Amino acid sequence: MQIAIVLYDRFTALDAVGPYETLGRLPDAETVFVAEQAGPVRSDTGALALTADRTLAEVRSPDIVVVPGGPGQSAQMENEPLLDWLRTADRTSTWTTSVCTGSLLLAAAGLLRGRRATSHWLALDVLRPYGAEPTGERVVLDGKYVTAAGVSSGIDMGLTLVGRIAGDEHAQAVQLLTEYDPQPPYGAGSPGKAPAHLVEEFRAKSRFILT
Amino acid sequence: MQIAIVLYDRFTALDAVGPYETLGRLPDAETVFVAEQAGPVRSDTGALALTADRTLAEVRSPDIVVVPGGPGQSAQMENEPLLDWLRTADRTSTWTTSVCTGSLLLAAAGLLRGRRATSHWLALDVLRPYGAEPTGERVVLDGKYVTAAGVSSGIDMGLTLVGRIAGDEHAQAVQLLTEYDPQPPYGAGSPGKAPAHLVEEFRAKSRFILT
Repeated sequence: MQIAIVLYDRFTALDAVGPYETLGRLPDAETVFVAEQAGPVRSDTGALALTADRTLAEVRSPDIVVVPGGPGQSAQMENEPLLDWLRTADRTSTWTTSVCTGSLLLAAAGLLRGRRATSHWLALDVLRPYGAEPTGERVVLDGKYVTAAGVSSGIDMGLTLVGRIAGDEHAQAVQLLTEYDPQPPYGAGSPGKAPAHLVEEFRAKSRFILT
Repeated sequence: MQIAIVLYDRFTALDAVGPYETLGRLPDAETVFVAEQAGPVRSDTGALALTADRTLAEVRSPDIVVVPGGPGQSAQMENEPLLDWLRTADRTSTWTTSVCTGSLLLAAAGLLRGRRATSHWLALDVLRPYGAEPTGERVVLDGKYVTAAGVSSGIDMGLTLVGRIAGDEHAQAVQLLTEYDPQPPYGAGSPGKAPAHLVEEFRAKSRFILT
């Protein structure tokens, strides 16, 4: 079971590492980090680089494709080599997945037309022009397409998929070993729960970022 | 505010990336990944390398020290250059922190004597011979020492500390932007909640791993 996690400049690290730490614990998992060029790829803060061990060209038919999001996603929306790779990999994949604004890249590749999908809460509306139907859910399964909401939701997505692929007990074992018994010190993790002025502040800022 | 995240061979990636993605969003944060040697450091699965941009010798007095855990921790328990660095950095740090079995390295450096601390649930008992008092809590603050339980708990630890340092509203903003509104598909994230036979199975295996 080969899992390809796609990296590009200014991705968000937790978007990639949440699925890696869960899906990567599937029986017989072979996880490979891929990018247009092999080598270190910098995340959005600039402070962390993850190594892409293989180029996109070297990994043509992974069983699971994982596309993280991040501020760097917008610069990839017309990157044909990447979008072509996504289309090609999707032809033979068992699951095509994303976290955060990674779903916008799947949408730009034309893979989410007529599908229900999710994204970072600030980016949900961007799905619609690509023919996808945005939902506010944290993890959305539509056929073999699995999209997760912002950043940390990739952990929930990964565990959900481990359960589908390897059974509930294996997923529970992964949850237990990663001690995923979340106890956030605040209840501000979604726009419906966070203080309204914070939500408004980020919505106002995002008009510049996302358009 | 300099945050040094320590890498070593076979660390667990999410242990490091959870605090990175939260503490790294502090105002004026300068996050730096450090290791004995600069360059890529492989995590426990072998499938992922994070880059250490600086050597331990180059970063002597970070404000926050973060020590992740992972299967590779046991090979570091008598690594004097690393333990010495921890002792030196701790002399001037504002916060000295760990995730998962990273607390065993703080303990081995003599930093948790007489302190309440936590660790991965399978490793809690190992704290005691080093003079620390293990607790089953997810995030434990004792003075400037902040220890988190297994793997994913570093996110809760990071948010807790962001709140202490920059205030509740900043921490809520970080939670909202990382959309940390966890919805695990199973309720098996701690030994008290997981199926008993899974807990027993891993306890039996860990007798070989941890001793």
